Order: sequence, then C-alpha cells, then structure tokens
Amino acid sequence: STSGAKTGPPPVLRYNLNNVTITNTPVKNRESVLILTPMARFYQGYWDNLLKLSYPHELITLGFILPKTKEGNAAYAELDKQITKTQKFGPEKDRFRSIIILRQDFDPPIPSQDEAERHKMQNQKPRRAAMAKARNSLLFTTLGPSTSWVLWLDADVIETPPTLIQDLAFHNKPVITPNCFQRYYNAEKKRMDERPYDFNNWQDSPTAQKMAAQMSPDDILLEGYQDMATYRALMAYMYEEGGDIHYEVPLDGVGGTALLVKADVHRDGAMFPPFSFYHLIETEGFAKMARRLGWHAAGLPNYKVYHYNE
Amino acid sequence: STSGAKTGPPPVLRYNLNNVTITNTPVKNRESVLILTPMARFYQGYWDNLLKLSYPHELITLGFILPKTKEGNAAYAELDKQITKTQKFGPEKDRFRSIIILRQDFDPPIPSQDEAERHKMQNQKPRRAAMAKARNSLLFTTLGPSTSWVLWLDADVIETPPTLIQDLAFHNKPVITPNCFQRYYNAEKKRMDERPYDFNNWQDSPTAQKMAAQMSPDDILLEGYQDMATYRALMAYMYEEGGDIHYEVPLDGVGGTALLVKADVHRDGAMFPPFSFYHLIETEGFAKMARRLGWHAAGLPNYKVYHYNE
Ligand SMILES: Nc1nc2c(ncn2[C@@H]2O[C@H](COP(=O)(O)OP(=O)(O)O)[C@@H](O)[C@H]2O)c(=O)[nH]1
Ligand SMILES: Nc1nc2c(ncn2[C@@H]2O[C@H](COP(=O)(O)OP(=O)(O)O)[C@@H](O)[C@H]2O)c(=O)[nH]1
Ligand SMILES: [Mn+2]
Ligand SMILES: [Mn+2]
Repeated sequence: STSGAKTGPPPVLRYNLNNVTITNTPVKNRESVLILTPMARFYQGYWDNLLKLSYPHELITLGFILPKTKEGNAAYAELDKQITKTQKFGPEKDRFRSIIILRQDFDPPIPSQDEAERHKMQNQKPRRAAMAKARNSLLFTTLGPSTSWVLWLDADVIETPPTLIQDLAFHNKPVITPNCFQRYYNAEKKRMDERPYDFNNWQDSPTAQKMAAQMSPDDILLEGYQDMATYRALMAYMYEEGGDIHYEVPLDGVGGTALLVKADVHRDGAMFPPFSFYHLIETEGFAKMARRLGWHAAGLPNYKVYHYNE
Repeated sequence: STSGAKTGPPPVLRYNLNNVTITNTPVKNRESVLILTPMARFYQGYWDNLLKLSYPHELITLGFILPKTKEGNAAYAELDKQITKTQKFGPEKDRFRSIIILRQDFDPPIPSQDEAERHKMQNQKPRRAAMAKARNSLLFTTLGPSTSWVLWLDADVIETPPTLIQDLAFHNKPVITPNCFQRYYNAEKKRMDERPYDFNNWQDSPTAQKMAAQMSPDDILLEGYQDMATYRALMAYMYEEGGDIHYEVPLDGVGGTALLVKADVHRDGAMFPPFSFYHLIETEGFAKMARRLGWHAAGLPNYKVYHYNE
C-alpha cells in the first residue's frame, strides 16, 4: 500500500468472515488481537506492562494514534525508540506481529493534558468528542478482516495481570472491562494505597434517565461530577477485597482504560460517538451503540488494572 | 496477516494522516480510492463499467462483501472469474492495486433478492439493517490509513461516465452522489426510455420532520412509499434535460448506489446505522450521522448513472 509499482500479479485477498473465530479460548484457536492505544503521553510503565502480556505476541497487532502537538511529538519519539528496541533487538517472543502508528490530523481541543485541566467539567464535551474521533480514526484504519478481538488500552494504564487478554476473553462477552484503579500515597495512613480511577463503567439509574429526558438533544451526561449527581451504580465502587476476580456484572456505560471488544461488535458498526448519542459520548456512547446493535457490555469489579498517578 | 511466520524484523508502519491529501484534483495528487460494493448478485455490466473507469487503476483498491447464500455463492464464482481475468491476464492498465473479498457471516434477513420482494415496505427495516451491517463490515475491515476517498458503488450500477470519480471529487464535497436512473422499455411510446431509480437522495421536509417527531424511537421513515408520504424534495425529480451536469444541491438523505465519501468522514466515525438514527437507517442514516459530525452531503441532479433493470 506504499507504492504503485508492481512485481507480479496484484494481490487478491479472500476472507470468509465465518472462519474468523472469536472464542473464549483465543490462544488455542490462534485468534488475532488488535491492541489500540490513543497516546498523548508516553509512559515507560505502559510499554513494560505491554511487553509482559502473555498472549502470544505474534498474534498481536499494535495500533497507536498520537496528536500532532509538541507533547505528541515527544511521546512519538519515545514510543518509536521502544518499538525499535523490541522489534529489532528484543527476544523473538517479545516482538509483535505488526505495529501501526498514526499521527492525528486535527487539533486537540484543550491546550493542556494535565489531569486537573482535562477533568474540568466544561472541558469534557470538546475533549471527549476529540478523543472519540481519535479512537474512530484508529479503529477504522487498523481493523482488518482477520481480527478477532480489539483491546482498547489507554497509554497511562501501567499495570495489569499478564494474562489480561486471556482472562477477559474467557468470559466470552461482546464487550468486557476490568476495574481501573490508581495507586497513590495515602498521607493520613502514611503508606501506599489505592483508589478507584475510572468512573465511566456504570449501570444506569432512574435519576440519570430522568436527567437525560430533560436535556436538549446535544447535551451530554457526565459521570463523576458533584454538580451532576446521576446515582448510577459505578463499578469503581463494586470492588470487594478478596472477591472472585471473575465475578461479572452487566454494564450500561464503559470507559476506555482497558476494554476488550469482539471485532464483530465494531464490524457491525459500533464506534465511539463524537456527538451526543442518547446523551452519552465517546466510550459511554459506544456501550449504548453496541447495545442498540444487540451486544451487551459486562464488567469485572474485582479484576484490577492500574492507571498512572501524575 | 495470513501467517505468523516471520522473515526478518516485523513490520512497523508509520502514517501521518496529515500527509494523506483529499483534494479536488485527486489524480494529480495520486490519491488512493477504495471502491466498496456489497454484492448479492453479479452483473457483467457492473464489471465492464468498473473496468472502464478512467481513474488510474493502480490507485484503486476494490472491496466486496457477498452473502453466504446460494445466490451469493454464484455471484462470488462469477466475480472471481472476472477478477482473475483482469488481474492475471488483462492489460496492465486495467489491473487494480488490490482486491479484498469478504463473505458475510450473518444470515440475510429476507429470503429473496427479487425487486418486488425486497421493496415491500414491511421488509425494509430488517433488510436495510442487514445491508447497513454488511456495509459497516466492509468499511471497517478495508479502510486503510492511506485511503483518501471511498466510492460506494452498488453491484447493479451498470453504467456511469468513465470519469465518475474525477467528476464527483472535483466538487470537493465530503459526501456527494450522482442521480441514479434506470433504462426501461416504454411500452406506450414503443421505445427505450429512462426513469429515476434511487429515491434515497432527498432534502428534508417539515412533513417528514413532523412524522418523525410522532414516531416511537425505533421506528424509521421510508422514502418512496405511498402509505408514507413525506413530501421531501427528491433529487430523483430534480433532473433537468440538458442541465449542467455540475449543478449541485444540498442533501439531507443519501442512497448508496454511487456515493463518493472523503475517507476522513468515515474516519471520524460516520457509518451506516443498522438501527433507527433520528428515524433514519442505513445510507440515509449515514448522511445524518455525517451531518452530526459536521459534514454536509451534496447531490448532482443532472449527473446520471444507471441501475440495472431486472
Ligand atoms: N491521540 C490522542 N490521544 C489522546 C488525546 N488526549 C488523550 N489521549 C490519550 O487517550 C487516553 C485517555 O485520555 P486521558 O487523558 O488519560 O483520560 P483520563 O484518564 O480519563 O483523564 C490516554 O491514553 C491518553 O494518552 C489526544 O488529543 N489525542
Ligand atoms: N453483502 C450483501 N449485499 C447485498 C445484500 N442484499 C443486497 N446486497 C447488495 O447491496 C446493494 C443494494 O441492494 P439492492 O437490493 O440492489 O437495493 P435496491 O436497488 O435499493 O433495491 C446491491 O449492490 C446488492 O447487490 C446482502 O444481503 N448482502
Ligand atoms: Mn488516563
Ligand atoms: Mn440495486
């Protein structure tokens, strides 16, 4: 696809989508996984964790999209260095099947990537619309006919069990997500501690439904803001110490920190709405769209992954 | 992507989406075009017309999706024969850059492909939802990072000007469509004649808006049915004999017979909703979704292409 020059007859590729299996034993069936990461900043912890994933790397394609900003350029340089190290000089078993890196062709909507700035409520709609478009660009240009699973993994997820893909696929759900936490120093207790991070995994509430019904068509509901109490049941708070890691709950909204999706869900048309879709946007809108297509999302409250702490 | 075996270091592909131009002089800028065709039946006229397109074939990738039915199998066999003829034995200038053929992994919703049967009103919603999913599967698995334009071309469009792609791209619109007609024998006039075919290209009306407002969320508006008069302005009837072929009108709904889309519209997330989206579905829903993303559709009433007459 990089040159019009031909050597021999041009390629004709035939795919029977029926032969692409999507099962709860993906390693045994040698199913292809596409790991997609929108990346504004590079974290070494993300890359190190990625390398430790025990799903056969020769079945994994990586896809990245990075903004065309100063920060994005810096992240690109670091990512590129790590890729070369792994793909060229690393042990055979570490190397991924292929890697696609996209540079975004639109401007980021807010100037700063700092946690406080990006979580301000008035910044959420343009920010999440831009994120949705970045995810869609990445998805539409990298999903292939032989992909079985798509793992969405944010660039600041720095710690997961190495069996993440196998463990999530084991549930055989169209859309499934673990619980994303954050390690921090608890000054009161004077020791390291952890707290829930991703509030976009939730079960709907009558209050949220009522709020949505009174909104104008373009308005969106946001989760995790005091000014907008939705009384949704958040998976973040369903974690039980010592609980079964395979305990599963149904979800109406999902986040994108770590999200395993059967490729057929995307192929049917489920994408990340960059506009208000049932008053939801981006990953939360994606869960709703998947539902409209007949696919139900699930979550694992006791299965933890960790977000970087800035 | 067909084998895990490696020879040399695995591929790393880097794409700057900013460098993929989408201009009104696509030949000069050597822009890649992806022609996508959902195909239930094979028509020789479609293939012959495709071969005659003067857009440089080495810049064109073809993508097909065919149902896994007896009819689909027959169409696949005929398509395959023509592809081999062109790609292996045809003149160099006829050969396309690459060809991807998908076989659908879900059942067609209605048993027959006959025109009378498929146009029955009660068959429309399941039929068009299935068509939408077929289009999405095709789109999500074939769109690449270097694609500039997507031309949707139905398998029963058997006659277009050879300069179709250049002529449509010349308008530099995010979504643009010609007027799809049908040749037939006019028994009254005792001679060949032609009539409008595609009624999905329209401008919205207050009546249709009102009808939509009174519908339940899952209901869809259909065009071209007497029981459901929408009073939309149909591009089919805007044709003027001898009129400028480049005369352009804005559209709110589009059909899929021949439809040129800037790849960025799809990359932003615009797909074919297989569910009621603002009471629209499939290609008409696509136009609405593109609009929600800020992209406006246009039509060329005097620029004709022709649909097969069964
Ligand atoms: N390509 C791209 N990625 C982004 C952009 N903004 C954030 N990201 C990435 O998208 C993911 C989610 O964003 P983040 O800011 O961490 O969301 P939060 O953790 O919910 O505050 C992370 O992997 C970011 O690195 C952007 O403008 N473009
Ligand atoms: N893959 C696939 N293509 C289909 C199916 N049904 C129709 N098509 C194709 O989709 C396009 C539009 O369908 P068609 O029946 O011609 O629509 P109409 O002309 O509006 O009645 C044509 O190219 C058909 O060959 C289907 O079930 N699967
Ligand atoms: Mn984050
Ligand atoms: Mn047709």
